Amino acid sequence: MPHEFKLTRRVEFAETDMAGIVHFANFFRMMEVTEHAFFRSLGFTIHGHEPGVTIGWPRVSATCDYRAPLRFEEEVEIHLTVAEVRTRSIRYQFTFRKVGSAIEVARGQLSAVCASVEKATGKLVPMPIPNAIRDAITAGPPEKLSVE
Amino acid sequence: MPHEFKLTRRVEFAETDMAGIVHFANFFRMMEVTEHAFFRSLGFTIHGHEPGVTIGWPRVSATCDYRAPLRFEEEVEIHLTVAEVRTRSIRYQFTFRKVGSAIEVARGQLSAVCASVEKATGKLVPMPIPNAIRDAITAGPPEKLSVE
Amino acid sequence: MPHEFKLTRRVEFAETDMAGIVHFANFFRMMEVTEHAFFRSLGFTIHGHEPGVTIGWPRVSATCDYRAPLRFEEEVEIHLTVAEVRTRSIRYQFTFRKVGSAIEVARGQLSAVCASVEKATGKLVPMPIPNAIRDAITAGPPEKLSVE
Amino acid sequence: MPHEFKLTRRVEFAETDMAGIVHFANFFRMMEVTEHAFFRSLGFTIHGHEPGVTIGWPRVSATCDYRAPLRFEEEVEIHLTVAEVRTRSIRYQFTFRKVGSAIEVARGQLSAVCASVEKATGKLVPMPIPNAIRDAITAGPPEKLSVE
Repeated sequence: MPHEFKLTRRVEFAETDMAGIVHFANFFRMMEVTEHAFFRSLGFTIHGHEPGVTIGWPRVSATCDYRAPLRFEEEVEIHLTVAEVRTRSIRYQFTFRKVGSAIEVARGQLSAVCASVEKATGKLVPMPIPNAIRDAITAGPPEKLSVE
Repeated sequence: MPHEFKLTRRVEFAETDMAGIVHFANFFRMMEVTEHAFFRSLGFTIHGHEPGVTIGWPRVSATCDYRAPLRFEEEVEIHLTVAEVRTRSIRYQFTFRKVGSAIEVARGQLSAVCASVEKATGKLVPMPIPNAIRDAITAGPPEKLSVE
Repeated sequence: MPHEFKLTRRVEFAETDMAGIVHFANFFRMMEVTEHAFFRSLGFTIHGHEPGVTIGWPRVSATCDYRAPLRFEEEVEIHLTVAEVRTRSIRYQFTFRKVGSAIEVARGQLSAVCASVEKATGKLVPMPIPNAIRDAITAGPPEKLSVE
Repeated sequence: MPHEFKLTRRVEFAETDMAGIVHFANFFRMMEVTEHAFFRSLGFTIHGHEPGVTIGWPRVSATCDYRAPLRFEEEVEIHLTVAEVRTRSIRYQFTFRKVGSAIEVARGQLSAVCASVEKATGKLVPMPIPNAIRDAITAGPPEKLSVE
């Protein structure tokens, strides 16, 4: 059942800080970019519209452990694994590796809850994950199953 | 021994995303801004210079749990507590509360290791926390002690 | 008629890049922060609500000339002058100076058009600046008039 | 002599703001990403090392005119043209177009000066553009010449 996805990305100048490395908060943006590319790979968008409702995925928690610095123009492979699918939420795990090396740069986790966005107020109300999304994620193509 | 510090900050437009709330990665930047203001309040800078050496504080881990959305122009009070001081690292805890309300918006943690920055290569090498910093942090003024 | 406003701000670590200076794109965020603080000083919010309509200020143009680098923890004074108020748009000029010195760090300009935000589609439709805002901006308190 | 380069990029969630569109300051980051990819396409890096010296390209000026909003997950083609090469500086022009449409989203300009970075102080000192870079840029392959 765990589903996986990989994204490769090159570090941009504006992602670095004066210490000469990728600013630690930007790893969370990279996790999100990978999550969204994963949704697109399944034919969905993370900020989608079911009939009559706009769906978002507000975060419940986010963590990252940093193992090695990542620098400008280095390529990093971000590996997403779906760790858990619950009625209203999904939990992802991520590993960051430098392309062309065995160096693990970081390891993170993201939990997001499915929510409808109220048009008038912008309020986010938790809702069950739509079946189409749930089916796609829990029934990922066998060749994409994680084998770690 | 736990030392504490508070910072109040107003949410900026560029910190929001299309869901109308502060982007989750920006909470980590707010933790860091608070950590640096805490250092300044003790007479230090986070990116300091000891005789012959430049010091930085690369992150070992970062976590955040999100409880309520934070929106444009809302004021948030960020409360830092020093949770642990070790030979080469410090661990901080943070709580985010909306000013003028009891609403806890988020709760996070940051671990950072003291490191010297090699001039020639930019390499970060862990080192013991300088005594001046260690003394200031473990011997914070009594009226600033956490009473949670 | 030109109205002015000043904001002081300390450079944050995440605003720097690996060249050790504030990343050039962040000057535009600082202009915006100053514009929004200016609106608040007049009793308005930049993302406001007239009866039945949400108002935004999409940008028409933005420019910045850089004269000196700005570094971590330096304090910068951002000076906003209203250069022009037209039926549907406002043009601001900004100068950035290091606090406690005569050094001009940068000089910029921002043009923004008043627009209503369509709830259903998010579409931005230009509209005349509401009278309350126009009156406040063109009739700024005399002691705040620019004398450059 | 004008040299050109194209980059295609998909809008990320964290690049949007609460108005539901790409925050205007992020267009400057997109210009920079294109400039750096252009340098890589010529075999250089923007933050390079000549024998004994580290080279950077601090910005002298940056401008952007906005014509249409750009939204989450839309693909944008960024077209760089080298407008001018002087002894110590380069000026680029950029146009942003939505992929698969004729819509011009924005048009911008960036001037950067070639500078050496002093190791001890981080000070940026203007210097003539190294010959290898100048030759590559002024002698771009004929099939890449702009034909606008």
